Amino acid sequence: MDAFIAEVPNAPLESTVDTLKSGSRDQVVTGIVTTMFATISVIQKAIELNANFIIAHEPTFYNHLDETEWLENDPVYNYKADLLEKHGIAIWRNHDYVHSLAVDGVQAGVVNELGWNDYYQENAVLNLPKTSMKNLINHIKNKMGIPAIRYVGDLDQIVSKILLLPGAMGGRRQIELLMQEKPDVIIVGESPEWETPEYVRNANEMGEKISLIVIGHSASEEGGSEFMAEWLRKNIPEVNVVHFPSGNSLHVF
Amino acid sequence: MDAFIAEVPNAPLESTVDTLKSGSRDQVVTGIVTTMFATISVIQKAIELNANFIIAHEPTFYNHLDETEWLENDPVYNYKADLLEKHGIAIWRNHDYVHSLAVDGVQAGVVNELGWNDYYQENAVLNLPKTSMKNLINHIKNKMGIPAIRYVGDLDQIVSKILLLPGAMGGRRQIELLMQEKPDVIIVGESPEWETPEYVRNANEMGEKISLIVIGHSASEEGGSEFMAEWLRKNIPEVNVVHFPSGNSLHVF
Repeated sequence: MDAFIAEVPNAPLESTVDTLKSGSRDQVVTGIVTTMFATISVIQKAIELNANFIIAHEPTFYNHLDETEWLENDPVYNYKADLLEKHGIAIWRNHDYVHSLAVDGVQAGVVNELGWNDYYQENAVLNLPKTSMKNLINHIKNKMGIPAIRYVGDLDQIVSKILLLPGAMGGRRQIELLMQEKPDVIIVGESPEWETPEYVRNANEMGEKISLIVIGHSASEEGGSEFMAEWLRKNIPEVNVVHFPSGNSLHVF
Repeated sequence: MDAFIAEVPNAPLESTVDTLKSGSRDQVVTGIVTTMFATISVIQKAIELNANFIIAHEPTFYNHLDETEWLENDPVYNYKADLLEKHGIAIWRNHDYVHSLAVDGVQAGVVNELGWNDYYQENAVLNLPKTSMKNLINHIKNKMGIPAIRYVGDLDQIVSKILLLPGAMGGRRQIELLMQEKPDVIIVGESPEWETPEYVRNANEMGEKISLIVIGHSASEEGGSEFMAEWLRKNIPEVNVVHFPSGNSLHVF
């Protein structure tokens, strides 16, 4: 943890959700699993691998701050917390720090996953060779293994300038960046319907050619956990590191 | 507005997002359009119908409080605001009030749309005849005209006890009601992935039989705007009222 945080400009952050959700700073690490969500399957995988440290990007207990008092009588919370304690598994959320690297680690990981390194200027704007929205969505589905993607706009629109914003940074921030960059298409992890999707629908209704692709939160940032695994292998080579994708919770029928 | 608010217990609410987003309280109403989202198409429909009052359930300007300072230089915001001003269209958001009726108007409207009046006890819990998740999702798709639905769980699960929570009340509230009611399936409009979907995935991983159906926010509450139109026709029969569904912003490919 300290080795990674030391690479982050202006670290440590005064206020961060990147805390230990279980375990302690002092335990000896027997192996590391990186993932988006520390699901029960991921925890069981870590136990099998005799890895007692999970680095997850997202919350463990269903809310951004991982508050747990409201869950104290809940069987799901208790099952998960007991499993972690019984097997001595520490979970660290690495969210704010990995996003705060000089080059956002999640962004870099996702660009790599999408095969777009040639177009990457180490920021959220990529100028791809012209293609249709339909082809762009198919490319993302193939590279990320997603069966269905939600979108706003026109599947026949020819697009080149992409604004790539994995995760869920909030509609206002997404829209502000969209106003600033004026891309052909904005790609996000997720957004409440009343925010970015509604803005893009209105923009299309007034005649602007702009589309929105909603990848899904988990798939949109999985590349960031792969990035994290690579970073660990390079910087702490003596520890066994496995990246285990938690996959999408939501299926489409 | 005042006639509707007078029916709400404990009204007027001290703090509410149900304000006029355009127009004034004093204008003479020439006709009313009810809808989920006051999209540009809905506004144009109102202009065609010579209806100068839109009652929408959701925000007009892409954020819960309809704050607009941050949008002052934005072409989409300006186009929409100018269109409303030019044609003298008032928009009232009726969200908190319609949900606060003695029987939640959105819930009642959605139950009616789904053909479940026989099982409705005027609360969120419905005991339907036993069916599979697959059949339940197909029923919702058919009744609401939705091409694809996201879910967590098992399509073969036999379900009967439904917890019906249209809209996006927040993952914590959804999970708390789920803990309290222990339904076979919880149906919501939307939830961030790290909240309710992740909880339900974990519950399944530990062996609990519970599923989640994410209808989509807009479709999940459209019945509430139909309810509102019916209410207006009954209580203010002298005014022409049209319900115009705004439809889903997001398509699936």
